[in-house]
Amino acid sequence: MTSAPQGGPLLREALAAIAADVDAGFDALLPVPDDGRARLFEAMRHATIGGGKRLRPLLLVAVAGLHGVGRETAMRAALAIEAVHAFSLVHDDLPCMDDDAMRHGKPSVHKAFDEATAVLAGDGLMAFAFEILSDSQYFPDPFIRAELVRCLAVASGPAGMTGGQMMDITGEGQELDLHTITRLQQLKTGALLGAAVEMGAILGRLPSEGRRHLRGYALDIGLAFQISDDLLDHEGDEDAAGKALRKDAAAGKQTFVARLGAERAREQARALVDQAIAHLAHHGHEAELLRELARYIVERDH
Amino acid sequence: MTSAPQGGPLLREALAAIAADVDAGFDALLPVPDDGRARLFEAMRHATIGGGKRLRPLLLVAVAGLHGVGRETAMRAALAIEAVHAFSLVHDDLPCMDDDAMRHGKPSVHKAFDEATAVLAGDGLMAFAFEILSDSQYFPDPFIRAELVRCLAVASGPAGMTGGQMMDITGEGQELDLHTITRLQQLKTGALLGAAVEMGAILGRLPSEGRRHLRGYALDIGLAFQISDDLLDHEGDEDAAGKALRKDAAAGKQTFVARLGAERAREQARALVDQAIAHLAHHGHEAELLRELARYIVERDH
Repeated sequence: MTSAPQGGPLLREALAAIAADVDAGFDALLPVPDDGRARLFEAMRHATIGGGKRLRPLLLVAVAGLHGVGRETAMRAALAIEAVHAFSLVHDDLPCMDDDAMRHGKPSVHKAFDEATAVLAGDGLMAFAFEILSDSQYFPDPFIRAELVRCLAVASGPAGMTGGQMMDITGEGQELDLHTITRLQQLKTGALLGAAVEMGAILGRLPSEGRRHLRGYALDIGLAFQISDDLLDHEGDEDAAGKALRKDAAAGKQTFVARLGAERAREQARALVDQAIAHLAHHGHEAELLRELARYIVERDH
Repeated sequence: MTSAPQGGPLLREALAAIAADVDAGFDALLPVPDDGRARLFEAMRHATIGGGKRLRPLLLVAVAGLHGVGRETAMRAALAIEAVHAFSLVHDDLPCMDDDAMRHGKPSVHKAFDEATAVLAGDGLMAFAFEILSDSQYFPDPFIRAELVRCLAVASGPAGMTGGQMMDITGEGQELDLHTITRLQQLKTGALLGAAVEMGAILGRLPSEGRRHLRGYALDIGLAFQISDDLLDHEGDEDAAGKALRKDAAAGKQTFVARLGAERAREQARALVDQAIAHLAHHGHEAELLRELARYIVERDH
C-alpha cells in the first residue's frame, strides 16, 4: 500500500483542484467572528478545511459541468453537501457514537475542542448547508434553490443518512441478511453520494430520463465506495487513512466484508463499478472523469 | 405558584388548539418504520409529541392567520420550526451540554433512549424540518419554499440559535456586560422566535414594512421570554416546569437575573412586553391573540 495519488490523470487533477476550491470556499464563507461564537466557527473550520477526499463536491461539480453549469455556481452547492458530510463525521466521531479520536490525520473535533463544541459545530454545519442552498445571491432561481434543499434534506435525514446511521448502530452484533446490509449502506453512504449527483443534475436542469441514468451511476458507486471502505477498514493502512482502522469487526458492524468475506466483497465492488460505468454509455468523452472516479473507488488505498 | 392555565381566554384556547395540532401533525408525519430506523423515529416522536408550550408554532400560525393564510398550510411550516426547536432541546439536554435528565415532565431523549440515539434524533429532526419546508405538496410556490428555508436556516445556524448556544457556553463563569448578554439571548432564543413571526409573514406574502413591525414585536417578546425563563429558573416551581431548575447560577450562566437582580429583570421584561404590544398598534382586534401572548410571557409560571 502506498499513499501516492491514484486514479487516472483527469481524476488526479480534478481531485487536487476540488480540494483547493473546497478549502478556499469554506475559508471565505466561515470567517471567525470576534465574539463568543469564535470557538464554534473555529470548530466548523477544523471540520471542513484541509482534509477529506471531497468526493461529493467532485461528483456534484462534474455532473453539473456535464450540463454546462459554471464551476462557481456548482461549487456553492458543493460546499453545502460537503458541510453536511463534515457534520455527519463530527457527530459520528463523538464518544457516544464511534468514539474516533482521529479524522483526516488530525484530532477529531471533540478532541481538538470538546464534546459540546463538536455537537454544536455539527448542528451549525447542517444549518449552514441550507443557508447556502437557499441564498438567492448564489442561486437566483427559487425553483433551483427549493429543489436543491429538498434533495439534500431528504438525503441527510431519517429517510437517508441519519436513518442509515441508526440502522448501523441498531444492527451491531446482529446477523443481517445481504438485502438489509445493502439497504443500510445505501442510506448511510449512498444517499449523500446520490444527492451529489442529483444536485449537479438539478443545477443542470436535467430532465428525469437523464437523471435516471445518473442516479443508477450514483447508487452503484455509492455501494462500491462503502464496500471499499469496509475493505480498507479490514486490511488498509492507518497512516494512509488518517484514522484508526480495524474497528468494524470489533464493534460487530454489519458490513459486506463481514457477510461475504474480503474476496467476494472485492468482486462485488468491481462488478458495481462496471455497472456504474455502463450507466454512462450514452455519454461520450466528457464523462471520462466520472468513469475514472468510479474506477478509483475500488483502487484507492485510503 | 399554580400550574393552572394562564393567559387571556383567546390565548388559552389557542394554546390548547395548537398543542393538539402539533401532536397530531408529528404523529402523522413520523410513522415508525418497520426496519432498523424504528428507534430513530421513536426518539424523534418522543422529542416532539406531548410536551412544550408550542409558542413558536402558535406565533407562526397567528401571524400567518393575520394575513389570510389557511391553518393547514401554516401548520406545516409550524411543524418545521417546532422540529428545529425540539432538536435544539434534545442536543442541549445531552450530558456534554446542559446534562438535563428531564424535559417536559418526562425523561429527556438520551435518558429514554441513549446518547447516540439522541444525537441522531436531533440531526434527523433538523433535516426533517427542511424536508417539510421544501416539499412542493405543502408549499406549491418555490419562492415561498426557498424563503421559508432561508429564514429557518439562518435563525438555526451559527448566525442564530447555534451561535447563541456557543456564546452561552463560552460565557459561563465570565462577567459579560448587558449588551453582550442581550446579544447572546437574542441569538439563543430570539432568533427562532423571530423566525416564527417571519415565516408567518412570508406565508402571508407581507411586504417589508409590515414585516418590520412584526420583527420588532418578535425581538421584544423573545428577550422578555428569555428573562422570564431566567426568573423561572431562579424562583420557579420544578413540578410546573417539568425539568430541574436553579441550574443557571450553579453553572455560572450569564443571565439578566444574574446581572440585574430579579426585581430589575422583572421590570425589564414588563417594559419589553409593553414595547412589543406597541409594535402592534396599527393592528386591530385581529391581533389580540398576539397581545395576549406577549402578556402571558411575563405572567406564566412555567
